Amino acid sequence: MAGKVFFSVSMSLDGFMAPEPVPVENVFSPEGQNDPRVQLWMKKWSELQAWVFPLRFFRENLKLGEGGEEGLDNDIARATYERTGASVMGKRMFDAGELAWPENAPFHTPVFVVTHTTREPWERPGGTTFHFVNDGIEAALNQARQAAGNRDVRIAGGAETILQYLNVGLIDEFSIALAPVLFGSGIRLFEGVDASRVALEQVRAVTTQRVTHLTYTARKR
Amino acid sequence: MAGKVFFSVSMSLDGFMAPEPVPVENVFSPEGQNDPRVQLWMKKWSELQAWVFPLRFFRENLKLGEGGEEGLDNDIARATYERTGASVMGKRMFDAGELAWPENAPFHTPVFVVTHTTREPWERPGGTTFHFVNDGIEAALNQARQAAGNRDVRIAGGAETILQYLNVGLIDEFSIALAPVLFGSGIRLFEGVDASRVALEQVRAVTTQRVTHLTYTARKR
Repeated sequence: MAGKVFFSVSMSLDGFMAPEPVPVENVFSPEGQNDPRVQLWMKKWSELQAWVFPLRFFRENLKLGEGGEEGLDNDIARATYERTGASVMGKRMFDAGELAWPENAPFHTPVFVVTHTTREPWERPGGTTFHFVNDGIEAALNQARQAAGNRDVRIAGGAETILQYLNVGLIDEFSIALAPVLFGSGIRLFEGVDASRVALEQVRAVTTQRVTHLTYTARKR
Repeated sequence: MAGKVFFSVSMSLDGFMAPEPVPVENVFSPEGQNDPRVQLWMKKWSELQAWVFPLRFFRENLKLGEGGEEGLDNDIARATYERTGASVMGKRMFDAGELAWPENAPFHTPVFVVTHTTREPWERPGGTTFHFVNDGIEAALNQARQAAGNRDVRIAGGAETILQYLNVGLIDEFSIALAPVLFGSGIRLFEGVDASRVALEQVRAVTTQRVTHLTYTARKR
Protein backbone atom coordinates (compact mmCIF):
# COMPACT_ATOMS: atom_id res chain seq x y z
CA MET A 1 0.00 0.00 0.00
CA ALA A 2 1.34 3.41 -0.94
CA GLY A 3 1.98 5.91 1.81
CA LYS A 4 0.75 9.48 1.99
CA VAL A 5 2.45 12.67 0.90
CA PHE A 6 2.51 15.30 3.62
CA PHE A 7 4.30 18.34 4.94
CA SER A 8 4.78 19.43 8.52
CA VAL A 9 6.10 22.87 9.41
CA SER A 10 6.04 25.51 12.11
CA MET A 11 4.23 28.75 11.20
CA SER A 12 3.82 32.10 12.95
CA LEU A 13 0.23 33.20 13.58
CA ASP A 14 0.65 35.69 10.73
CA GLY A 15 1.61 32.96 8.28
CA PHE A 16 5.40 32.91 8.09
CA MET A 17 7.48 29.74 8.19
CA ALA A 18 10.85 31.52 8.29
CA PRO A 19 12.20 35.00 8.98
CA GLU A 20 13.46 37.29 6.19
CA PRO A 21 16.31 35.43 4.48
CA VAL A 22 19.88 36.37 5.38
CA PRO A 23 22.91 34.89 3.59
CA VAL A 24 23.24 31.40 5.07
CA GLU A 25 27.02 31.65 5.21
CA ASN A 26 26.57 34.52 7.66
CA VAL A 27 24.35 32.52 9.97
CA PHE A 28 26.99 29.86 10.42
CA SER A 29 30.07 32.06 10.58
CA PRO A 30 31.39 33.66 13.79
CA GLU A 31 31.56 37.11 12.11
CA GLY A 32 28.02 36.76 10.77
CA GLN A 33 26.68 36.19 14.23
CA ASN A 34 27.50 39.79 15.13
CA ASP A 35 25.41 41.00 12.18
CA PRO A 36 22.14 42.51 13.51
CA ARG A 37 20.18 40.94 10.62
CA VAL A 38 21.53 37.53 11.58
CA GLN A 39 20.73 38.18 15.23
CA LEU A 40 17.16 39.10 14.35
CA TRP A 41 16.90 36.00 12.15
CA MET A 42 18.12 33.78 15.00
CA LYS A 43 15.75 35.44 17.48
CA LYS A 44 12.70 34.93 15.27
CA TRP A 45 13.69 31.41 14.24
CA SER A 46 14.18 30.49 17.90
CA GLU A 47 10.73 31.83 18.81
CA LEU A 48 9.12 29.93 15.95
CA GLN A 49 10.84 26.66 16.81
CA ALA A 50 10.74 27.17 20.59
CA TRP A 51 8.47 24.16 21.00
CA VAL A 52 10.99 21.80 19.34
CA PHE A 53 14.29 22.47 21.12
CA PRO A 54 13.36 21.17 24.59
CA LEU A 55 12.00 17.84 23.28
CA ARG A 56 13.53 14.51 24.18
CA PHE A 57 13.06 13.41 20.57
CA PHE A 58 14.92 16.47 19.23
CA ARG A 59 17.86 15.85 21.55
CA GLU A 60 17.94 12.17 20.69
CA ASN A 61 17.71 12.71 16.93
CA LEU A 62 20.51 15.26 16.89
CA LYS A 63 22.55 13.29 19.46
CA LEU A 64 22.58 16.21 21.87
CA GLY A 65 22.54 13.90 24.87
CA GLU A 66 20.10 12.47 27.36
CA GLY A 67 17.03 14.13 28.79
CA GLY A 68 14.50 16.48 27.28
CA GLU A 69 10.77 16.90 27.63
CA GLU A 70 8.23 14.17 27.00
CA GLY A 71 4.53 14.73 26.43
CA LEU A 72 2.32 15.59 23.49
CA ASP A 73 4.77 17.84 21.61
CA ASN A 74 7.37 15.13 21.86
CA ASP A 75 4.93 12.43 20.73
CA ILE A 76 3.92 14.51 17.71
CA ALA A 77 7.51 15.25 16.70
CA ARG A 78 8.44 11.59 17.06
CA ALA A 79 5.39 10.36 15.12
CA THR A 80 6.18 12.80 12.27
CA TYR A 81 9.69 11.41 12.11
CA GLU A 82 8.62 7.76 12.32
CA ARG A 83 5.98 7.94 9.57
CA THR A 84 8.53 9.38 7.13
CA GLY A 85 10.11 6.85 4.77
CA ALA A 86 11.70 9.46 2.50
CA SER A 87 11.84 13.26 2.20
CA VAL A 88 11.81 15.69 -0.70
CA MET A 89 13.31 19.15 -0.46
CA GLY A 90 14.22 22.14 -2.62
CA LYS A 91 17.76 23.14 -3.44
CA ARG A 92 17.83 26.17 -1.16
CA MET A 93 16.77 24.13 1.85
CA PHE A 94 19.48 21.61 1.01
CA ASP A 95 22.12 24.33 0.62
CA ALA A 96 21.26 25.81 4.01
CA GLY A 97 21.08 22.36 5.59
CA GLU A 98 24.42 21.29 4.13
CA LEU A 99 25.93 24.05 6.29
CA ALA A 100 23.68 23.52 9.32
CA TRP A 101 23.09 19.79 9.76
CA PRO A 102 25.55 17.72 11.75
CA GLU A 103 27.55 15.07 9.84
CA ASN A 104 25.00 12.56 11.07
CA ALA A 105 22.14 14.32 9.24
CA PRO A 106 18.75 14.17 11.02
CA PHE A 107 16.76 12.30 8.32
CA HIS A 108 18.06 8.72 8.52
CA THR A 109 16.22 7.94 5.24
CA PRO A 110 16.73 8.78 1.56
CA VAL A 111 16.22 12.48 0.77
CA PHE A 112 15.47 13.67 -2.77
CA VAL A 113 16.66 17.18 -3.63
CA VAL A 114 14.89 18.93 -6.52
CA THR A 115 17.66 20.81 -8.32
CA HIS A 116 19.18 21.73 -11.66
CA THR A 117 22.60 20.77 -10.32
CA THR A 118 23.81 17.27 -11.17
CA ARG A 119 25.62 15.53 -8.37
CA GLU A 120 26.30 11.95 -7.27
CA PRO A 121 24.25 10.69 -4.32
CA TRP A 122 25.74 11.92 -1.05
CA GLU A 123 25.67 9.36 1.71
CA ARG A 124 25.94 10.48 5.32
CA PRO A 125 26.57 8.36 8.40
CA GLY A 126 23.35 7.24 10.10
CA GLY A 127 21.35 6.31 7.00
CA THR A 128 20.67 9.64 5.28
CA THR A 129 21.48 9.63 1.55
CA PHE A 130 20.81 12.75 -0.52
CA HIS A 131 19.80 12.08 -4.13
CA PHE A 132 19.83 14.98 -6.60
CA VAL A 133 16.90 14.90 -9.01
CA ASN A 134 17.08 17.02 -12.16
CA ASP A 135 13.78 16.28 -13.87
CA GLY A 136 11.21 18.07 -11.76
CA ILE A 137 9.00 17.72 -8.72
CA GLU A 138 6.94 14.76 -9.93
CA ALA A 139 10.04 12.70 -10.73
CA ALA A 140 11.46 13.51 -7.29
CA LEU A 141 8.20 12.47 -5.63
CA ASN A 142 8.03 9.22 -7.59
CA GLN A 143 11.53 8.30 -6.50
CA ALA A 144 10.68 9.21 -2.92
CA ARG A 145 7.54 7.06 -2.99
CA GLN A 146 9.57 4.08 -4.22
CA ALA A 147 12.13 4.63 -1.49
CA ALA A 148 9.52 5.12 1.24
CA GLY A 149 7.76 1.79 0.68
CA ASN A 150 4.80 1.62 3.03
CA ARG A 151 5.79 4.73 4.91
CA ASP A 152 4.90 8.31 4.00
CA VAL A 153 6.79 10.89 1.96
CA ARG A 154 7.47 14.21 3.65
CA ILE A 155 7.86 17.33 1.55
CA ALA A 156 10.37 18.88 3.90
CA GLY A 157 10.58 22.41 2.46
CA GLY A 158 11.16 25.19 1.75
CA ALA A 159 7.90 27.04 1.31
CA GLU A 160 8.28 27.33 -2.46
CA THR A 161 8.75 23.59 -2.92
CA ILE A 162 5.83 22.78 -0.60
CA LEU A 163 3.59 25.16 -2.57
CA GLN A 164 4.59 23.63 -5.89
CA TYR A 165 3.36 20.26 -4.65
CA LEU A 166 0.25 21.71 -3.01
CA ASN A 167 -0.82 23.66 -6.11
CA VAL A 168 -0.77 20.61 -8.37
CA GLY A 169 -2.71 18.47 -5.92
CA LEU A 170 0.13 16.19 -4.81
CA ILE A 171 -0.20 16.86 -1.05
CA ASP A 172 -2.59 14.51 0.80
CA GLU A 173 -2.38 16.13 4.21
CA PHE A 174 -0.32 18.51 6.29
CA SER A 175 0.25 19.69 9.79
CA ILE A 176 1.19 23.11 11.07
CA ALA A 177 2.64 23.87 14.47
CA LEU A 178 1.10 27.31 14.86
CA ALA A 179 3.41 29.32 17.10
CA PRO A 180 2.04 32.17 19.24
CA VAL A 181 4.35 34.72 17.61
CA LEU A 182 3.95 37.43 14.99
CA PHE A 183 6.74 37.94 12.44
CA GLY A 184 5.45 40.87 10.38
CA SER A 185 7.77 39.85 7.54
CA GLY A 186 9.66 36.82 6.28
CA ILE A 187 8.88 33.81 4.11
CA ARG A 188 5.18 33.04 3.98
CA LEU A 189 4.15 29.39 3.94
CA PHE A 190 1.24 29.93 1.55
CA GLU A 191 2.74 32.62 -0.71
CA GLY A 192 1.65 31.90 -4.26
CA VAL A 193 -1.01 29.33 -3.38
CA ASP A 194 -3.50 28.73 -6.19
CA ALA A 195 -6.55 29.16 -3.97
CA SER A 196 -8.96 28.22 -6.75
CA ARG A 197 -7.43 24.73 -6.99
CA VAL A 198 -6.83 23.70 -3.38
CA ALA A 199 -9.58 22.66 -0.97
CA LEU A 200 -8.89 21.85 2.67
CA GLU A 201 -10.62 19.90 5.36
CA GLN A 202 -9.77 20.25 9.03
CA VAL A 203 -8.76 17.10 10.86
CA ARG A 204 -7.91 18.37 14.34
CA ALA A 205 -6.35 21.07 16.51
CA VAL A 206 -4.49 20.46 19.75
CA THR A 207 -2.96 23.14 21.95
CA THR A 208 0.05 22.26 24.06
CA GLN A 209 2.01 24.53 26.37
CA ARG A 210 3.97 26.14 23.55
CA VAL A 211 2.13 25.71 20.26
CA THR A 212 -1.11 24.70 18.52
CA HIS A 213 -0.92 21.64 16.27
CA LEU A 214 -3.29 21.93 13.30
CA THR A 215 -3.89 19.08 10.84
CA TYR A 216 -5.64 19.34 7.46
CA THR A 217 -6.25 17.14 4.45
CA ALA A 218 -5.93 18.71 1.00
CA ARG A 219 -7.55 17.91 -2.32
CA LYS A 220 -7.98 19.45 -5.76
CA ARG A 221 -11.08 21.45 -6.43
CA MET B 1 -14.24 46.87 37.28
CA ALA B 2 -13.23 47.76 33.74
CA GLY B 3 -13.85 45.26 31.00
CA LYS B 4 -11.35 43.93 28.49
CA VAL B 5 -10.57 45.13 25.00
CA PHE B 6 -10.71 42.35 22.41
CA PHE B 7 -11.24 41.53 18.79
CA SER B 8 -12.83 38.47 17.27
CA VAL B 9 -12.62 37.73 13.55
CA SER B 10 -12.66 34.91 11.04
CA MET B 11 -9.38 34.32 9.21
CA SER B 12 -8.35 32.06 6.33
CA LEU B 13 -5.50 29.64 7.06
CA ASP B 14 -3.23 31.88 4.98
CA GLY B 15 -4.02 34.92 7.10
CA PHE B 16 -6.77 36.87 5.32
CA MET B 17 -9.83 38.28 7.06
CA ALA B 18 -11.51 39.48 3.84
CA PRO B 19 -11.21 38.94 0.11
CA GLU B 20 -9.70 41.56 -2.23
CA PRO B 21 -11.84 44.69 -1.85
CA VAL B 22 -14.46 45.42 -4.50
CA PRO B 23 -16.49 48.66 -4.55
CA VAL B 24 -19.10 48.15 -1.82
CA GLU B 25 -21.84 49.76 -3.91
CA ASN B 26 -21.36 46.91 -6.39
CA VAL B 27 -21.80 44.20 -3.80
CA PHE B 28 -25.22 45.52 -2.85
CA SER B 29 -26.53 46.44 -6.29
CA PRO B 30 -28.31 44.01 -8.65
CA GLU B 31 -25.96 44.93 -11.54
CA GLY B 32 -22.88 44.48 -9.36
CA GLN B 33 -23.89 40.95 -8.53
CA ASN B 34 -23.21 39.95 -12.14
CA ASP B 35 -19.67 41.33 -11.88
CA PRO B 36 -17.21 38.39 -11.70
CA ARG B 37 -15.11 40.24 -9.12
CA VAL B 38 -18.15 40.61 -6.90
CA GLN B 39 -19.05 36.97 -7.41
CA LEU B 40 -15.56 35.89 -6.38
CA TRP B 41 -15.75 38.22 -3.37
CA MET B 42 -19.08 36.67 -2.30
CA LYS B 43 -17.77 33.13 -2.81
CA LYS B 44 -14.69 33.73 -0.68
CA TRP B 45 -16.58 35.65 1.98
CA SER B 46 -19.14 32.87 2.19
CA GLU B 47 -16.42 30.25 2.63
CA LEU B 48 -14.73 32.29 5.33
CA GLN B 49 -17.95 32.89 7.25
CA ALA B 50 -19.49 29.49 6.50
CA TRP B 51 -19.43 28.58 10.19
CA VAL B 52 -21.58 31.59 11.15
CA PHE B 53 -24.56 31.48 8.79
CA PRO B 54 -26.18 28.26 10.04
CA LEU B 55 -26.10 29.32 13.70
CA ARG B 56 -29.23 29.83 15.75
CA PHE B 57 -27.63 32.92 17.28
CA PHE B 58 -26.92 34.43 13.84
CA ARG B 59 -30.51 33.90 12.72
CA GLU B 60 -31.87 35.31 15.98
CA ASN B 61 -29.61 38.37 15.96
CA LEU B 62 -30.45 39.29 12.37
CA LYS B 63 -34.11 38.34 12.84
CA LEU B 64 -33.96 35.77 10.06
CA GLY B 65 -36.46 33.54 11.81
CA GLU B 66 -36.57 30.48 14.01
CA GLY B 67 -34.24 27.51 13.96
CA GLY B 68 -30.53 27.23 13.29
CA GLU B 69 -27.76 25.12 14.71
CA GLU B 70 -26.88 24.95 18.37
CA GLY B 71 -23.60 23.62 19.76
CA LEU B 72 -20.14 24.97 20.37
CA ASP B 73 -19.97 27.38 17.41
CA ASN B 74 -23.28 28.84 18.46
CA ASP B 75 -22.19 29.13 22.10
CA ILE B 76 -19.00 30.92 21.07
CA ALA B 77 -20.81 33.36 18.76
CA ARG B 78 -23.37 34.11 21.45
CA ALA B 79 -20.74 34.57 24.18
CA THR B 80 -18.81 37.00 21.98
CA TYR B 81 -21.96 39.03 21.48
CA GLU B 82 -22.97 38.94 25.13
CA ARG B 83 -19.62 40.05 26.53
CA THR B 84 -19.63 43.13 24.28
CA GLY B 85 -20.84 46.34 25.92
CA ALA B 86 -19.66 48.61 23.09
CA SER B 87 -17.83 48.30 19.77
CA VAL B 88 -15.25 50.39 17.95
CA MET B 89 -14.85 50.32 14.20
CA GLY B 90 -13.05 52.10 11.37
CA LYS B 91 -14.79 54.30 8.84
CA ARG B 92 -14.53 51.84 5.96
CA MET B 93 -16.19 49.09 7.94
CA PHE B 94 -18.95 51.50 8.90
CA ASP B 95 -19.42 52.61 5.29
CA ALA B 96 -19.77 49.03 4.10
CA GLY B 97 -22.03 48.16 7.00
CA GLU B 98 -24.24 51.18 6.45
CA LEU B 99 -25.14 49.54 3.13
CA ALA B 100 -25.23 45.95 4.39
CA TRP B 101 -26.75 45.93 7.86
CA PRO B 102 -30.49 45.72 8.26
CA GLU B 103 -32.25 48.75 9.76
CA ASN B 104 -32.19 46.89 13.06
CA ALA B 105 -28.37 46.83 13.11
CA PRO B 106 -26.82 43.74 14.74
CA PHE B 107 -24.89 45.45 17.58
CA HIS B 108 -27.62 46.51 20.04
CA THR B 109 -25.04 48.62 21.92
CA PRO B 110 -23.21 51.90 21.30
CA VAL B 111 -20.71 51.72 18.43
CA PHE B 112 -17.87 54.24 18.10
CA VAL B 113 -16.69 54.96 14.57
CA VAL B 114 -13.14 56.34 14.18
CA THR B 115 -13.43 58.88 11.37
CA HIS B 116 -12.49 62.34 10.16
CA THR B 117 -16.11 62.93 9.18
CA THR B 118 -18.21 64.83 11.70
CA ARG B 119 -21.75 63.55 12.08
CA GLU B 120 -24.43 63.52 14.74
CA PRO B 121 -25.00 60.20 16.57
CA TRP B 122 -27.11 57.87 14.44
CA GLU B 123 -29.62 55.90 16.42
CA ARG B 124 -31.03 52.68 14.98
CA PRO B 125 -34.00 50.66 16.21
CA GLY B 126 -32.99 47.88 18.60
CA GLY B 127 -30.43 49.76 20.68
CA THR B 128 -27.55 50.38 18.28
CA THR B 129 -26.31 53.99 18.25
CA PHE B 130 -23.34 54.95 16.09
CA HIS B 131 -21.14 57.72 17.49
CA PHE B 132 -18.61 59.41 15.21
CA VAL B 133 -15.31 60.12 16.94
CA ASN B 134 -12.92 62.58 15.32
CA ASP B 135 -10.01 62.65 17.75
CA GLY B 136 -8.31 59.31 17.26
CA ILE B 137 -8.33 55.70 18.35
CA GLU B 138 -7.59 56.29 22.02
CA ALA B 139 -10.46 58.76 22.37
CA ALA B 140 -12.80 56.31 20.65
CA LEU B 141 -11.70 53.52 22.98
CA ASN B 142 -12.14 55.69 26.07
CA GLN B 143 -15.69 56.54 25.05
CA ALA B 144 -16.38 52.88 24.33
CA ARG B 145 -15.04 51.84 27.75
CA GLN B 146 -17.33 54.34 29.43
CA ALA B 147 -20.29 53.10 27.46
CA ALA B 148 -19.49 49.41 28.05
CA GLY B 149 -19.48 49.66 31.84
CA ASN B 150 -18.52 46.25 33.23
CA ARG B 151 -18.72 44.58 29.87
CA ASP B 152 -15.94 44.34 27.28
CA VAL B 153 -15.11 46.54 24.31
CA ARG B 154 -14.87 44.83 20.95
CA ILE B 155 -12.67 46.32 18.25
CA ALA B 156 -14.94 45.19 15.45
CA GLY B 157 -12.71 45.96 12.45
CA GLY B 158 -11.50 46.36 9.82
CA ALA B 159 -8.02 44.91 9.84
CA GLU B 160 -6.33 48.30 9.77
CA THR B 161 -8.21 49.55 12.82
CA ILE B 162 -7.57 46.31 14.72
CA LEU B 163 -3.85 46.57 13.94
CA GLN B 164 -3.68 50.18 15.10
CA TYR B 165 -4.96 49.09 18.52
CA LEU B 166 -2.78 45.96 18.62
CA ASN B 167 0.41 47.82 17.74
CA VAL B 168 0.06 50.32 20.58
CA GLY B 169 -0.72 47.65 23.15
CA LEU B 170 -4.42 48.40 23.63
CA ILE B 171 -5.71 44.88 22.85
CA ASP B 172 -5.95 42.55 25.87
CA GLU B 173 -7.01 39.41 24.05
CA PHE B 174 -8.42 38.18 20.78
CA SER B 175 -10.00 35.20 19.14
CA ILE B 176 -9.71 33.96 15.59
CA ALA B 177 -12.09 31.56 13.90
CA LEU B 178 -9.52 29.91 11.62
CA ALA B 179 -11.39 28.73 8.54
CA PRO B 180 -10.09 25.75 6.52
CA VAL B 181 -9.79 27.82 3.35
CA LEU B 182 -6.94 29.45 1.45
CA PHE B 183 -7.50 32.88 -0.10
CA GLY B 184 -4.18 33.58 -1.85
CA SER B 185 -4.98 37.29 -1.80
CA GLY B 186 -7.17 39.75 0.04
CA ILE B 187 -6.95 41.80 3.22
CA ARG B 188 -4.52 40.31 5.71
CA LEU B 189 -5.46 40.48 9.38
CA PHE B 190 -1.89 41.11 10.58
CA GLU B 191 -0.63 43.31 7.72
CA GLY B 192 1.60 45.97 9.21
CA VAL B 193 1.89 44.42 12.66
CA ASP B 194 4.81 45.78 14.65
CA ALA B 195 6.17 42.36 15.57
CA SER B 196 8.85 43.80 17.83
CA ARG B 197 6.22 45.31 20.13
CA VAL B 198 3.52 42.64 20.39
CA ALA B 199 3.90 39.44 22.39
CA LEU B 200 1.22 36.75 22.41
CA GLU B 201 0.26 33.93 24.69
CA GLN B 202 -1.99 31.07 23.62
CA VAL B 203 -5.11 30.50 25.68
CA ARG B 204 -6.84 27.67 23.83
CA ALA B 205 -7.77 26.05 20.51
CA VAL B 206 -11.02 24.21 19.84
CA THR B 207 -11.96 22.56 16.55
CA THR B 208 -15.61 22.29 15.66
CA GLN B 209 -17.10 20.85 12.50
CA ARG B 210 -16.44 23.93 10.41
CA VAL B 211 -13.68 26.00 12.00
CA THR B 212 -10.92 26.15 14.62
CA HIS B 213 -11.39 28.72 17.38
CA LEU B 214 -8.06 30.12 18.59
CA THR B 215 -7.76 32.45 21.58
CA TYR B 216 -4.72 34.53 22.54
CA THR B 217 -3.80 37.20 25.03
CA ALA B 218 -1.62 40.10 23.85
CA ARG B 219 0.83 42.34 25.66
CA LYS B 220 3.54 44.87 24.84
CA ARG B 221 7.10 43.67 24.70
